[in-house]
Amino acid sequence: MVETIEWTPDGVVMIDQTRLPRETVYVTCRTYVEVADAIKTMIIRGAPAIGVAAAMGVALGVMEDADFDTVCDTLARTRPTAVNLFWAIDRMKALKASLAGAPRAQLIERMTAEAKQIKLEDVAICEAIGRNGAALVPDGKTVLTHCNAGALATAGYGTALGVIRAAVAAGKQIDVFADETRPFLQGARLTAWELDQDGIPTTLITDNMAGHFLRSGRIGCVVVGADRIAANGDVANKIGTYSVAVLARENHVPFYVAAPISTLDLTLSSGDLIPIEQRPAAEVTQVFGVPVAPEGIRVENPAFDVTPAAYVTAIITERGVARAPYNQSLRELMKQA
Amino acid sequence: MVETIEWTPDGVVMIDQTRLPRETVYVTCRTYVEVADAIKTMIIRGAPAIGVAAAMGVALGVMEDADFDTVCDTLARTRPTAVNLFWAIDRMKALKASLAGAPRAQLIERMTAEAKQIKLEDVAICEAIGRNGAALVPDGKTVLTHCNAGALATAGYGTALGVIRAAVAAGKQIDVFADETRPFLQGARLTAWELDQDGIPTTLITDNMAGHFLRSGRIGCVVVGADRIAANGDVANKIGTYSVAVLARENHVPFYVAAPISTLDLTLSSGDLIPIEQRPAAEVTQVFGVPVAPEGIRVENPAFDVTPAAYVTAIITERGVARAPYNQSLRELMKQA
Repeated sequence: MVETIEWTPDGVVMIDQTRLPRETVYVTCRTYVEVADAIKTMIIRGAPAIGVAAAMGVALGVMEDADFDTVCDTLARTRPTAVNLFWAIDRMKALKASLAGAPRAQLIERMTAEAKQIKLEDVAICEAIGRNGAALVPDGKTVLTHCNAGALATAGYGTALGVIRAAVAAGKQIDVFADETRPFLQGARLTAWELDQDGIPTTLITDNMAGHFLRSGRIGCVVVGADRIAANGDVANKIGTYSVAVLARENHVPFYVAAPISTLDLTLSSGDLIPIEQRPAAEVTQVFGVPVAPEGIRVENPAFDVTPAAYVTAIITERGVARAPYNQSLRELMKQA
Repeated sequence: MVETIEWTPDGVVMIDQTRLPRETVYVTCRTYVEVADAIKTMIIRGAPAIGVAAAMGVALGVMEDADFDTVCDTLARTRPTAVNLFWAIDRMKALKASLAGAPRAQLIERMTAEAKQIKLEDVAICEAIGRNGAALVPDGKTVLTHCNAGALATAGYGTALGVIRAAVAAGKQIDVFADETRPFLQGARLTAWELDQDGIPTTLITDNMAGHFLRSGRIGCVVVGADRIAANGDVANKIGTYSVAVLARENHVPFYVAAPISTLDLTLSSGDLIPIEQRPAAEVTQVFGVPVAPEGIRVENPAFDVTPAAYVTAIITERGVARAPYNQSLRELMKQA
């Protein structure tokens, strides 16, 4: 399995997710600005993965001796929706504050160690999410997933795909339907590729086929990741997630969200308060540079949508499985250490 | 406005819909086999348009003096879902039977005249559908459509887009959201192009955004076409239509189907009996020849889905608007002459 992101003596090395699966190319970010650009252009994407990237970016900024507030602001301004980004920056900020007055060498050592630690923790968290979620996956059926909440969206193993991997490891006979996930095609390019590499039987479908197969009875459950979860259990995730959730409930198929505790944003009472990123029109009008629409056509390109908690059967975290009422269950998970 | 299909002294001329909007190329079919290939490869598509094409194909076959049953079977085997294809072939067969013993010149004249008549009627039918549907379109809101049920899917004017055109002609202040409609991108390539040419404000979205915008409140109604409608009002239409219908109902947005009477198949008691075409995997794994998924990945590619009648607010035909219970209302429309 490839590494999504790695701290090396040369800089932060990432696999370029815009070029998968056609090319396996690694990018080395030597400055915090390069890390910010990699997040913005989606060389690295996925809420947990961009949290790790942001932490490593902060560490690079400290090594560069750049103005600390500028470093944090630049990284924070890359993408607005995934809260893991802000969570990671805040954690680095807190460490920095605790090291006020420390010698520079020590500061660098502690900050880089913290960034590497966030990455290590992320893998362990994904494995725990997998363990907690595996039992929920019906045996002998198909799991539907949307976008990529896999090893490539995290430091490794994945959240939604972690649940699938753990179910397979537990001996369940399942296969996966992957929504291609327009416009960026994370499902076609990343999820199908990742699961194929792991030998997990995977079928690619276009996003608009999900309803048809949910109605057909072959889908045992839906598992997706999340970019931000509000206190009431509303879930921001890749555009199209809301549609899948409605179609799952309409067809009595459980809809699970798999995400680390760092994805919870209990400061927001509802998902309507989550900022939704608008991405460039060219993502919709072109596919790998090939135009697929009339020139100059108007486009909307919200990168995320909000799934109201009422459609969410359960939220699977590393600390356990939360169910409605989420205002209570999420707060309880958050309190655990 | 370009002509979708035309009978000329050189043969049947069609605009190549696989190459729009990048290139405006016309194809001339000189034999019934060439017409069958054009239908199969979707040079021409859309239920009413392939009905017209099949009728012209039958006329060409008669001019070629080919075996009549072979001509009809070849054209009937091109695509299984749209019933207009079979309706048009049956109409040509009935005329042929009524001309038993007629001189060859007269047979050719009557069969070609009938094919041209089917085309002329189709435009008039679309205009009547537009008139009947325009009143249902809420003023000052956005109309959502899926796939292309426009001039390009018919002999002209369109069914769903006919309703939109008629609403605009009636002075309603509306704009259109067009689902891109993967995998074949009829929405991005054809609907956006057609409406843009007519100066109707159109915004392109990916299929998985439809739910998000239905939930947002800006969509006043959904209007789509149909490939076959069963006696109980179940509607087969382009893959993804079912999802849009569920999401519309969930958000209290009316969901209208616009189709000619020739799309009704009252011999089928329910939509579950409608044959659903499976198309090649390459339509999903490649976009204009560019690979977008890992090589060799498993794919499902049903070209249509079935929307149960319970989600259909009304069916707009040239003879009037049918509402539930459809078993009764559709049968009544069918009986009118």
